[in-house]
Amino acid sequence: MKNDDNKKAGLTLGVDLGGTKIETALVDPEGKIVATERHATDPGKGPEGVIGDIVRCINSCLGKAGAQAVSMGIGVAGQVSTGAGVVIFAPNLGWRDVPLRSKLEQSVGIPVTIANDVRAATWGEWRHGAGQNTQDLLCLFLGTGIGGGVVSGGRMLEGCLNTAGELGHVPVTTGGRQCHCRNRGCLEAYAGGWAIAERAQEAAAKDPYSGATLIKQAGNINKITALTLAEAFRHEDQLAVKLVEETAEYLATGITGFVNAFNPCLVILGGGIIEGLPNYIGMIEARVRVRALEAAVERLSFVKAALGNDSVVIGAALLAHAAQESQ
Amino acid sequence: MKNDDNKKAGLTLGVDLGGTKIETALVDPEGKIVATERHATDPGKGPEGVIGDIVRCINSCLGKAGAQAVSMGIGVAGQVSTGAGVVIFAPNLGWRDVPLRSKLEQSVGIPVTIANDVRAATWGEWRHGAGQNTQDLLCLFLGTGIGGGVVSGGRMLEGCLNTAGELGHVPVTTGGRQCHCRNRGCLEAYAGGWAIAERAQEAAAKDPYSGATLIKQAGNINKITALTLAEAFRHEDQLAVKLVEETAEYLATGITGFVNAFNPCLVILGGGIIEGLPNYIGMIEARVRVRALEAAVERLSFVKAALGNDSVVIGAALLAHAAQESQ
Repeated sequence: MKNDDNKKAGLTLGVDLGGTKIETALVDPEGKIVATERHATDPGKGPEGVIGDIVRCINSCLGKAGAQAVSMGIGVAGQVSTGAGVVIFAPNLGWRDVPLRSKLEQSVGIPVTIANDVRAATWGEWRHGAGQNTQDLLCLFLGTGIGGGVVSGGRMLEGCLNTAGELGHVPVTTGGRQCHCRNRGCLEAYAGGWAIAERAQEAAAKDPYSGATLIKQAGNINKITALTLAEAFRHEDQLAVKLVEETAEYLATGITGFVNAFNPCLVILGGGIIEGLPNYIGMIEARVRVRALEAAVERLSFVKAALGNDSVVIGAALLAHAAQESQ
Repeated sequence: MKNDDNKKAGLTLGVDLGGTKIETALVDPEGKIVATERHATDPGKGPEGVIGDIVRCINSCLGKAGAQAVSMGIGVAGQVSTGAGVVIFAPNLGWRDVPLRSKLEQSVGIPVTIANDVRAATWGEWRHGAGQNTQDLLCLFLGTGIGGGVVSGGRMLEGCLNTAGELGHVPVTTGGRQCHCRNRGCLEAYAGGWAIAERAQEAAAKDPYSGATLIKQAGNINKITALTLAEAFRHEDQLAVKLVEETAEYLATGITGFVNAFNPCLVILGGGIIEGLPNYIGMIEARVRVRALEAAVERLSFVKAALGNDSVVIGAALLAHAAQESQ
């Protein structure tokens, strides 16, 4: 009886699998979280060990809710084949070609959908977050790295090998700063959290007088992070203001390109960088509006992501829900 | 009887409407041209006059073939609403909000489909050109300007206001050279024919000794064009080689971004710049292969556009064919 009720309610599990944590949530069909559970990830255990931890985390989440799930979705930080149910490459986990779907289905006994984590987050924002009722949108998550997802004509873009939407690795300068990928000049190499920290450290080292606030706040130059910069920006430190504005320039270059290439109706911005800087969306939007093609910005809106850190678990759970409905 | 035969054969008309010429072709369902006709465009006549010229050009094309068409497609250099059948803005024609579809349908008595010209060309390459049997491809046409079209998951991307694919206006450098659009640093501002000419003129003016071949060939510095450069490149003139390689760098930056953003299986390159430079695709491909994300290039091929200058008329005719089939 209970199981039937849950099937009717259509509760699904969403999992966010990253290199440092496993987050799970039981989610209703409207995208509302019923219960959550979080464990640390220990990539050293290998795939079998990590999968065991995922199952324990799930069971503990279900236990909290006193409920069952009809299916489950999992967003993985890495390259994923949704069709084959395989994690092709997840650098933070050290995984290559792990058949995650079949292994999880064996353990949990419900259908499993796997997806890239940013794709899952985009799905969450689209179906039950800031992008509802829009058929053409673009999500950009600005954290330590920069990830993206694109919905065009009411479908999420996948591409040839399911890696469409790597917007952090679109160049904003020919040549330019070395990225963590093999290229130079990527948007992430200027506006990803790690790159903002590098640029702030370099600026403070070059001019310690202007960098005094940043250096003092962080303890020493090498400890300056994007958070240090955001804090100093809020206190109107001149160097911080300059660096934050430069970062807005690079973001505007990247987003102008995305707007001209994809012509979205809506640009959704989320992640720690957006959370940490007051009115950063406004600063970026003002620049894009006067640079992108007029026809491409005519119906364009900018908005902050609505689901915060829960976007991946909610999106993964809703992807599982959608996979079931389409069967 | 004749009309029935033609309906069976499914001949459709394709029209390429630009600021300088009207090209028409009668095309069979396999994308083969049966007859063509070309008139000059006189934008000074206004929409009614130009539409009259289109109709005359069509009738003369049909007369040549001694055949009728069941429907017609028209590719327009400008922003188009395919759904409403309206040319929203065509700068080369000086048109704003011209209801082209209804006006043409009144005159020719067959169903008309209107599209952006680069979108039509992409459709032609996809259905009967270099992109057959591929569900994820990207076309880039390098002429005086740079236009693009994207097919993802078996659908051509349209975007919010039908302007998706403006790949020439994706920036390759923050700040950078002024584009003909209002932005700076666009791919077109480096690698469009007009920009290549500007860059070559500037280089020759800065160093007339190195630029001697270019200047001599063109007559004077201000007459140096992309064609002059291509000619000098084929004769291994040092400055020409340097400029062509720099242009390949900018193109590689742009295409690396497109490959990471869209993850196509196939990049189709066409237009005068590609036709004029031997093995230019190879020079660009070599750069993109070592810069784009490994997962994004794993299954990626580069190929030359197959339909040449006929891509718009063929694509427009095939769009008309597809519109009929979908009814």
